[in-house]
Amino acid sequence: MPSPRRVSIGIAGLGRIGQRHARTLLAIPQANLVAAFTPAPHELVWARENLEPLGVTVYDDYDKMLEQEGLECVFVATVTAVHAEQVLKGIAKGKHVFTEKPISTKEDVSQSVVDAAAKKPELKVMCGFMRRFDSSYAELKAKLDDGLIGKPVVYYGQTGDKRDPSGFFVQYAQFSGGIFVDCTIHDIDLALWYLGENNVVKSISAVGTCAIEPALAEHNDVDNAVGIVEFYSGQMASFYVTRMMAAGQEDQTWLVGTEGKMSVNLEPRINHLKIHDKYGVRSLEPQTFFDRFAASFATEFAAYLDTIINDTPVPIPFKGAVHAVKIACALQEAVNTGVKILYDENEVRTN
Amino acid sequence: MPSPRRVSIGIAGLGRIGQRHARTLLAIPQANLVAAFTPAPHELVWARENLEPLGVTVYDDYDKMLEQEGLECVFVATVTAVHAEQVLKGIAKGKHVFTEKPISTKEDVSQSVVDAAAKKPELKVMCGFMRRFDSSYAELKAKLDDGLIGKPVVYYGQTGDKRDPSGFFVQYAQFSGGIFVDCTIHDIDLALWYLGENNVVKSISAVGTCAIEPALAEHNDVDNAVGIVEFYSGQMASFYVTRMMAAGQEDQTWLVGTEGKMSVNLEPRINHLKIHDKYGVRSLEPQTFFDRFAASFATEFAAYLDTIINDTPVPIPFKGAVHAVKIACALQEAVNTGVKILYDENEVRTN
Amino acid sequence: MPSPRRVSIGIAGLGRIGQRHARTLLAIPQANLVAAFTPAPHELVWARENLEPLGVTVYDDYDKMLEQEGLECVFVATVTAVHAEQVLKGIAKGKHVFTEKPISTKEDVSQSVVDAAAKKPELKVMCGFMRRFDSSYAELKAKLDDGLIGKPVVYYGQTGDKRDPSGFFVQYAQFSGGIFVDCTIHDIDLALWYLGENNVVKSISAVGTCAIEPALAEHNDVDNAVGIVEFYSGQMASFYVTRMMAAGQEDQTWLVGTEGKMSVNLEPRINHLKIHDKYGVRSLEPQTFFDRFAASFATEFAAYLDTIINDTPVPIPFKGAVHAVKIACALQEAVNTGVKILYDENEVRTN
Amino acid sequence: MPSPRRVSIGIAGLGRIGQRHARTLLAIPQANLVAAFTPAPHELVWARENLEPLGVTVYDDYDKMLEQEGLECVFVATVTAVHAEQVLKGIAKGKHVFTEKPISTKEDVSQSVVDAAAKKPELKVMCGFMRRFDSSYAELKAKLDDGLIGKPVVYYGQTGDKRDPSGFFVQYAQFSGGIFVDCTIHDIDLALWYLGENNVVKSISAVGTCAIEPALAEHNDVDNAVGIVEFYSGQMASFYVTRMMAAGQEDQTWLVGTEGKMSVNLEPRINHLKIHDKYGVRSLEPQTFFDRFAASFATEFAAYLDTIINDTPVPIPFKGAVHAVKIACALQEAVNTGVKILYDENEVRTN
Repeated sequence: MPSPRRVSIGIAGLGRIGQRHARTLLAIPQANLVAAFTPAPHELVWARENLEPLGVTVYDDYDKMLEQEGLECVFVATVTAVHAEQVLKGIAKGKHVFTEKPISTKEDVSQSVVDAAAKKPELKVMCGFMRRFDSSYAELKAKLDDGLIGKPVVYYGQTGDKRDPSGFFVQYAQFSGGIFVDCTIHDIDLALWYLGENNVVKSISAVGTCAIEPALAEHNDVDNAVGIVEFYSGQMASFYVTRMMAAGQEDQTWLVGTEGKMSVNLEPRINHLKIHDKYGVRSLEPQTFFDRFAASFATEFAAYLDTIINDTPVPIPFKGAVHAVKIACALQEAVNTGVKILYDENEVRTN
Repeated sequence: MPSPRRVSIGIAGLGRIGQRHARTLLAIPQANLVAAFTPAPHELVWARENLEPLGVTVYDDYDKMLEQEGLECVFVATVTAVHAEQVLKGIAKGKHVFTEKPISTKEDVSQSVVDAAAKKPELKVMCGFMRRFDSSYAELKAKLDDGLIGKPVVYYGQTGDKRDPSGFFVQYAQFSGGIFVDCTIHDIDLALWYLGENNVVKSISAVGTCAIEPALAEHNDVDNAVGIVEFYSGQMASFYVTRMMAAGQEDQTWLVGTEGKMSVNLEPRINHLKIHDKYGVRSLEPQTFFDRFAASFATEFAAYLDTIINDTPVPIPFKGAVHAVKIACALQEAVNTGVKILYDENEVRTN
Repeated sequence: MPSPRRVSIGIAGLGRIGQRHARTLLAIPQANLVAAFTPAPHELVWARENLEPLGVTVYDDYDKMLEQEGLECVFVATVTAVHAEQVLKGIAKGKHVFTEKPISTKEDVSQSVVDAAAKKPELKVMCGFMRRFDSSYAELKAKLDDGLIGKPVVYYGQTGDKRDPSGFFVQYAQFSGGIFVDCTIHDIDLALWYLGENNVVKSISAVGTCAIEPALAEHNDVDNAVGIVEFYSGQMASFYVTRMMAAGQEDQTWLVGTEGKMSVNLEPRINHLKIHDKYGVRSLEPQTFFDRFAASFATEFAAYLDTIINDTPVPIPFKGAVHAVKIACALQEAVNTGVKILYDENEVRTN
Repeated sequence: MPSPRRVSIGIAGLGRIGQRHARTLLAIPQANLVAAFTPAPHELVWARENLEPLGVTVYDDYDKMLEQEGLECVFVATVTAVHAEQVLKGIAKGKHVFTEKPISTKEDVSQSVVDAAAKKPELKVMCGFMRRFDSSYAELKAKLDDGLIGKPVVYYGQTGDKRDPSGFFVQYAQFSGGIFVDCTIHDIDLALWYLGENNVVKSISAVGTCAIEPALAEHNDVDNAVGIVEFYSGQMASFYVTRMMAAGQEDQTWLVGTEGKMSVNLEPRINHLKIHDKYGVRSLEPQTFFDRFAASFATEFAAYLDTIINDTPVPIPFKGAVHAVKIACALQEAVNTGVKILYDENEVRTN
């Protein structure tokens, strides 16, 4: 049923994803968007035109936004490099904080943010992994928990971005932490969710290549990579990540259990339309992750805000976000060094 | 971008669909739900519990709701038998009116409502055919207009309700106007939209049967029927309607043109999940029309309210709703009499 | 297991389908192709080059082929106009006869052939409806007989030929009996097989148009048509037939029963390959009925020849082929006259 | 067109696959099955009942079969452990030899067989990888060669056997060489075919587990494994292999290129039937590799025998089979040791 009240929110960051998040927040009943911050002049122009008329106060200083009277919650949607700092500041000011993934591209920095949040258990702090709120992934989880496919054994996760001929992602690569940290982190989060969040990693291997953008090599990055994570439980996860998809955004997952298999999006399509013409029988794909996950973001934000309204636990435990970053960083390192990374049974690295 | 203002709305009818519509209106930025009417005591209870706390005034008298200060618009979601009267009253009071389909189960009554609306062109009056706002049907229309499949020739439309073992639809049949008027009207609206809204009907044939509910015969209704509508343009439409689907709601459409074909939902599924187990490889279907079209209702309401806010034409011309009712009634009659119904080139009946 | 012996066969007709059938017969263990007849000079050239070296005697006179020493069986694959005469001659000479569908484009002629066969029960005479031997249609039948979907109520059958820009089918139309007799007869056969072979027709309606080939009208034919057959059992069949498919051969069927639905080929594709490129995610379709049904012909021939080898009943009762012709002719007439055709409970026509 | 002559063939091995191969050979026009060998008493019984009546001489001594007058060709379908010896003997006797994969579970033994064949270039010697003759995999290759998806970069191959509750595969594991050698070898062959047969391996990593059959560990085997092969070209292949599929045989492949992607069998189904019932909308899967590939075996045998008849090169160069064995053995070793295996640019192992 309808929400009993709206949470007063300030959003930090009004780039591609920030503007999307602002629009989403304006359209869900649990949210009252009252403030927005961005350091970027052209984004400020956009905010003054589009947000101010709706009663949103616009800031070019994050600290000032935090001072706004009545502000309860911050949504951090800035570049990854400043996530950690902004989350810490929000916590320090006693705000609930939702942050885009990843907390940081470094495991230790991520851990320090989680530690800070742990000291203020009254605050709802969550790192956004919107796939968990997508109806397909969520139904997979529900059916898995019902025992439909027995014990899960092998996870496969693929994040496939449509090729962006502008080369935007090359410049982005210097800050992103690499393709595994930037993209596969969603698959890692799902793998942990499905295989068991307390799983201990035994080994990590990965290889990658620059098939379309040699310039990525300068940032120790690649445009196609595959990796394997082995757990002490005997379970395993296999990942593929690429920036080279031709038809659209192709994020695919399957999970094989002892009694069955479930898959998500092995037949990609944006809607129920099929075209039968000289090219064959064809579906069109979503072109961006937002085409694919717009509804998931809204569901995620509503679920998160409900925890503030009702003072219930956040749906994604915050500490898990550190584990995902740790694994992503190790996959990236494995690509760059060619070394298979090993861990002991406490998941302490041994090589 | 976000809506510049919210339209003050009263909803009439709080049954199954009315409650859904109320929730949808509470969650879209263009709407300000300020009033609700229902004559049913248990629905009043629901409204007092769920809507009043959110600032919605609850009425057991439709006329009184129309008097509410500041009310701009009425959403009619009552039983079909009172649609026409309530729409007329709303128009008389100078309100914008959105009505659930059909306007009436009679062609002449429907026409009188359209005539009344035509006299107040400043009011936005629309009959809801939410499928036009579904992303799949809408994309089919856009690609058709782009010429992707040449000239459209044959339309197929199927409305397949999941079998409801409660037999609810048997009692409902005495008011519904029959299965073609109740269900196929959506397919008729799509057929006219795709084949051309000015198409003139040449003949109508149909047959039907009571395969699971013999009691429907008492209300001159059936639970399965097929029909053909032939147009003077040489185009044709084929319909199948059933209340006997086992897997879920299965609404399917295809359109064959001189250069290609497009289809919607020939592979029904509620999301991107597939289960691979002892039953095979399977998708789950939406269980109700609401599972399938929840997002379309929201899109439709937003598009309709935007026309009030911006004073632009409604997206579905109101007079078309009469044509759909006329065709639906003739299909129903053709089932009941066994006669093929014929029309002259002005669509005046000749037998 | 392998066949214990090979049946000596003569084939009549070496056109498009006849050559295919000859190749199929050369490749199945039950067949020994010993003779071939065609009246067409260029087909005789083909036969002398391709069949004679393999020990097949080639004839330009059907009667002479029938005299060949040791000949046991004739496969009639000539033009429809001579099917009946050649089957009758084969029966008169005591040969087993397999004939391509339809026996004739006329119901009475078809009946006379069935009557002649009935007088020689020791001969295996069968009209080919290869779809019954396709693994998908056959499995549908098996599961239907197992009760998987309860009592069958509504059949939908579509034969969609890929558009042939050569216009071959226009000339062909003068002999074919019309699109329902030429193409839909397969769907009619399936409808009777699934709904019950003893079903009595109550009414037949149909409409059609010449969307791409106006010249068809000269032969009382159309290139797109839809029709409905109503049975006294309360069951019904809906047909769509077209020569205008853009992507390939698209023969689709579904059957709705009281407890479920089964469909065949709603997602057409020639194999398991999918292409993900700028056109979307796409499958390719079979381009001709032979691409779709090559394996079914081989299965059909083997099953038919096994009945000769083992002296068992033919898998498709011969008299049923007359019923299919009767219904097909009535659908064609309904298109041409615009009249709904009615029958009494003995399936005697009443209008 | 029909084959101009039949090759006289002896088959070695009449187990599960051998009996299938015998039947296939009896049904293709290029083959004349004249001899069969098996050392197993119950298989001899089967052969005397089923093959002898058709003119096939049955042997319990392989060497004696090789002496049969007029024998031109041997099909080796025995257990893997004797493949190499029987192929060598066939070559020594001047017979054309088709052998089931793998030549051997050891790279050096495989190489010795290839070397022996190389000395008799007049003999057609081929190792069977029937997937290359499957219409889907073959069309992928044709479209790849046409440049449809640009340069291939990443291959994914999965062999998923349906879970066999009899545990047959546990006993089989002591001879099979392990799951990568037994099953993944088909995927390795495809990967080399698609990515380039002269590709040089840079590294191999793999992990595996015994999820359903702990007893496999005794034979250094697993029932689920994933592996990565990295090539010096920058290309890579990712494999998944399992004996735990619930729905059926699920062999899936995709290939991502710089301009597009192609996939095979991501939507598994045995035919075109769909069932819509209380379990959802579902397809049934092939239950065994033979259900999936029966037609491919026939196509493969015909293509191979054509090379004998026409003295043309065999379609799969024999030496490639050694490379596939080498990679399969390394994947298996990587699972067992946990070590990432490295190669220099001549593909000589460096660790």
